[in-house]
Amino acid sequence: MVKDLPANTVERLSLYRRVLLNYPYQETPYIHSHRLAHLLKINPAHVRRDLMLIGFTGDIHKGYYIKSLIEKVGEAIDCRYIQKVAFVGIGDMGRAVAEYFNNANSKLKVAATFRLNDEPATQFMEVKCYNISKMKEIIRKEKIEITVLAVPQNFATEITKAIVHAKVKGILNFTSMHLQVPPEVHVENYDMIAKLEKLAYFTNKDTCPAEGDEQ
Amino acid sequence: MVKDLPANTVERLSLYRRVLLNYPYQETPYIHSHRLAHLLKINPAHVRRDLMLIGFTGDIHKGYYIKSLIEKVGEAIDCRYIQKVAFVGIGDMGRAVAEYFNNANSKLKVAATFRLNDEPATQFMEVKCYNISKMKEIIRKEKIEITVLAVPQNFATEITKAIVHAKVKGILNFTSMHLQVPPEVHVENYDMIAKLEKLAYFTNKDTCPAEGDEQ
Repeated sequence: MVKDLPANTVERLSLYRRVLLNYPYQETPYIHSHRLAHLLKINPAHVRRDLMLIGFTGDIHKGYYIKSLIEKVGEAIDCRYIQKVAFVGIGDMGRAVAEYFNNANSKLKVAATFRLNDEPATQFMEVKCYNISKMKEIIRKEKIEITVLAVPQNFATEITKAIVHAKVKGILNFTSMHLQVPPEVHVENYDMIAKLEKLAYFTNKDTCPAEGDEQ
Repeated sequence: MVKDLPANTVERLSLYRRVLLNYPYQETPYIHSHRLAHLLKINPAHVRRDLMLIGFTGDIHKGYYIKSLIEKVGEAIDCRYIQKVAFVGIGDMGRAVAEYFNNANSKLKVAATFRLNDEPATQFMEVKCYNISKMKEIIRKEKIEITVLAVPQNFATEITKAIVHAKVKGILNFTSMHLQVPPEVHVENYDMIAKLEKLAYFTNKDTCPAEGDEQ
C-alpha cells in the first residue's frame, strides 16, 4: 500500500480502476489522462496528480499503459489480506449489494449479516444471517473490520452504538443519519437522497421557475 | 430555485438539510458554520460559501437559524412540482430504496418500476411493476423524468440505450459501468465499491505493510 494518500485520491483511484476494468484495453492498451478524466467527468489535473502520488507515470505520446495502471492502483490501495465485511440490517439491500460484490473481484469478503428482530432471516452468498443480538460475539469471533449499515433511519443511532461497542474499524453508512463515533472509527456516508436531489436540481433547473418568478 | 449553483454546492445543500432535519433544533435553534461543517466532515469555508450562494446569512454571534435554513435550502434546490422517478431493474434494491423515499419527504415520487425479463414482478409502495419492454411507452405516458438504474452490470449499456431512447432527463447510476449518454441527459454515479474500497484503505492502512516492506 501507498500510505497517507488523501481520501479523495483513494476514492478516485478506485473509480479509475473500475472504469478501466470495463474499458476495451485489449484493443486500446493506452489511455491519456484527459480521456480518463472525461470518462469520470473530472479535471485531468486530478488524474495526473493522483497517479503521480502513487508513482505511476505515462508515456508522453501514448499515455498510460492501462494494464499496468490497474495493477498499480491495486498495489497502492488494496491490502494483501482480505478484509471481512458484515451487513447490519440486511432486509432487501443485502442481496442487491451482494450482486456488486460478486462483480467486484474485491479484497473484501462478506462474512456475516445481521437482521433486526422483525426482519426475515434472509440468506445470501452462503453467508450466515444472525440476529442482531449476536453481533458483538460474531464480529469478534470472525474478526470483522467493516460493517455496512443499512437499517431504517430510526434505528441508526442505537445500532451504531452497538457496532462501535463491537469494535469494528469502519462503517459504510447507508442511512441519512449523522453517526456519532469515536475518532478511531472511520465512517463513509453514502447518502442516496443527496444524489437524487442533486440530479433532480440539474434535470429541472431549466424548466422550473426561478425564485421570485413564480406568480 | 436558485439557478446555476455548482454541482457540489447542490449536493452539500441537500446534505445540510438532511443533517439539520435530524438535528434537535427545537432545543438548539441556531448552528454555527463550523459545527455544521464538523458534522459533515467538511471545511467550514464551504458551508459559508454555499449558504452565501443561496443568499442565506447567519447571526454573527448565534450562527444560522436552523428552521429558516432548512426552508431556504428547499427554496434553492427543490422545484415546485413533483418529479416522477422510475426504477429500472428493480430486484431487491427497489424495496430498500423505497424505505428512503418514505423517510425523505421529498419532491420526488416513484411512479413506476421496470423489471428485467427474468426478475419476479415485485411491487412496492403501490407502484406498478412493468416488463422492461414497456419502458418507453410508460415513461412517456407517465411523464417520468428520472430513472434509477440498478441492473446487473452486464445489462447496463444496453438498458441505458433504451432509457436514453425513452427521453428521460436524468439517470442515477447504481452500476459501476460508465454510461455513455448524450449531453442533455444528466448522470449521477453512485458507486458503492469505490466507497467501500476507500473505507477499506483507511481502516487498514495502519496495520497493512507498506509497499516494499513486505518480504
